[in-house]
Amino acid sequence: MPSTWKVDTRKLECEVLDFMADLLRAPKDNWWGYVTNGGSESNMYGLYLARELYPKGMVYFSQSTPYSVNKDLRILNMHRVVIKAQQNGEMDYEDLRETISRNRHMPPIIFANIGTTMKEAKDDIVKIKQIMSDLAIDNYYIHCDSALSGMIAPFLEPRPAFDFADGADSISISGHKFIGSPIPSGILLARKSNVDRISTAVSYIGSKDTTIPGSRNGFNALLLWYAIKSVGKEGFKARVQDSLKKTDYALGKLVQAGIQAWKNTNAITVVFPAPEQEYIDKWQLATENGITHLILMPNTPYDLIDKILDDIIPSVKRERTHN
Amino acid sequence: MPSTWKVDTRKLECEVLDFMADLLRAPKDNWWGYVTNGGSESNMYGLYLARELYPKGMVYFSQSTPYSVNKDLRILNMHRVVIKAQQNGEMDYEDLRETISRNRHMPPIIFANIGTTMKEAKDDIVKIKQIMSDLAIDNYYIHCDSALSGMIAPFLEPRPAFDFADGADSISISGHKFIGSPIPSGILLARKSNVDRISTAVSYIGSKDTTIPGSRNGFNALLLWYAIKSVGKEGFKARVQDSLKKTDYALGKLVQAGIQAWKNTNAITVVFPAPEQEYIDKWQLATENGITHLILMPNTPYDLIDKILDDIIPSVKRERTHN
Repeated sequence: MPSTWKVDTRKLECEVLDFMADLLRAPKDNWWGYVTNGGSESNMYGLYLARELYPKGMVYFSQSTPYSVNKDLRILNMHRVVIKAQQNGEMDYEDLRETISRNRHMPPIIFANIGTTMKEAKDDIVKIKQIMSDLAIDNYYIHCDSALSGMIAPFLEPRPAFDFADGADSISISGHKFIGSPIPSGILLARKSNVDRISTAVSYIGSKDTTIPGSRNGFNALLLWYAIKSVGKEGFKARVQDSLKKTDYALGKLVQAGIQAWKNTNAITVVFPAPEQEYIDKWQLATENGITHLILMPNTPYDLIDKILDDIIPSVKRERTHN
Repeated sequence: MPSTWKVDTRKLECEVLDFMADLLRAPKDNWWGYVTNGGSESNMYGLYLARELYPKGMVYFSQSTPYSVNKDLRILNMHRVVIKAQQNGEMDYEDLRETISRNRHMPPIIFANIGTTMKEAKDDIVKIKQIMSDLAIDNYYIHCDSALSGMIAPFLEPRPAFDFADGADSISISGHKFIGSPIPSGILLARKSNVDRISTAVSYIGSKDTTIPGSRNGFNALLLWYAIKSVGKEGFKARVQDSLKKTDYALGKLVQAGIQAWKNTNAITVVFPAPEQEYIDKWQLATENGITHLILMPNTPYDLIDKILDDIIPSVKRERTHN
């Protein structure tokens, strides 16, 4: 939308969105998006869109989902059912099938995790769509929270089922995770035909503005633009390969040392039993229910990986002996 | 809340909030707040808090209110009535009284504008509280959107009725307006006892996190901290005086030139009939319904004021002759 104020980053924002729409196989001429203040806002937008399309919808997400989603749903006044997660963090599709089949009168709104926080598990939206088809459900909505993996998955073989071509209706990606923006930001992409249905309604109450915030942060768009222009599609592909190599390196060392470490297919997150608190604090390791992870980002040098592992391998072993 | 991640700006954020709580006369040991991504998020938080306290509440705001509030209310699924505005942009209290009296079964949630976008009009919350008292309404909530004026009003004589001591339940202030942060941000302060009632409920669903976004932008807190530390309370007071002087200077020149310019009491916004489009574009002047304004921020040099006025005074006159 044109504006009186002439200093802006709208063109840069559009370039960022074009780049992402291509990566996420958005339908040509039928996508819309904006740069958000972070994953929570992107997710809220996707869920808001779903609620406007299906006011009587029921939201389903696995127990691996970050708590912030509960907050979004509370703000949006939406009902939800938590679905069991498999051991690897992925949604338990049988539990989803059973639960939806008991609520077939309410349009399902699926909040899929494409890379869970702790185990980087990816829900498979083709499997989810199959369930809808089996249950003869036509009206449903799939939002993919691909905060970390949205920038990784497009470069993986086999390609995880998570993007628009696979059936997503909206996708959220964080700017400060794999893309590497120094301050939290996010990208939200959605099917334009859905956004248009909302925009019309908002117009009616006097607003043509379809984003969640009013004054938006152009600096975020600038930082993302700089990242995509300086790294580029090939550059991100190389970074993904590099991260996968480092992950295999770290996983190999842990397993060789006799530690029960593992990772999901093509994940850059290594999961293992927690070391002693001292080392959790020293290396600021995210730990939940006795499980710790390392995410092998492209900028992690090998000597740092060695240093961390030399510290924590003996500690994990001691911790295991004590318990 | 403590965190595994050790690089943060929480202490700086607390200093910013302490500074603002003092300025806004927040009740000692009974306030809570956070640095937001901008006015829209701050307002959404205030309205969210109000909705949780009064799920059957009705929101009232004047027609001078920015459209973004409609969007917030739509996301929050809240009902609202738009109240007439007086000529100067302030809420029409008689219309408010009549409208509330017809809906006494619904707890009123007042969205007060402390400095409207176009005319910098300030709703008087003491007058609003008097209406509640006259109508024997005990359960109500007042949120003050003081995006621009929140940093000005505490230094004015007479002090506008808008802060916690006057009866506000939550207050929103923009970081990128009078405080001068280069990227959009905001501050939200609310009564802690109200936030605690929400927090408990959120705990129950598994989250202790009471802010709207998940990952928050520490850079915003840093920029605001730098502003309050480098300018200080006395510095902001001087800036307000400086702005008021510049406003009187600009207003004087316009009036002397025979233009029907005016300003609200102690406002730093001069309002006048719109000049020709050419000058609206050239000086990027906010214009609505044939009315244009100039906001005399402290960093506006006198020679720039002269340059703008030399351009627009003849243009306003020509425009008036044509119409």
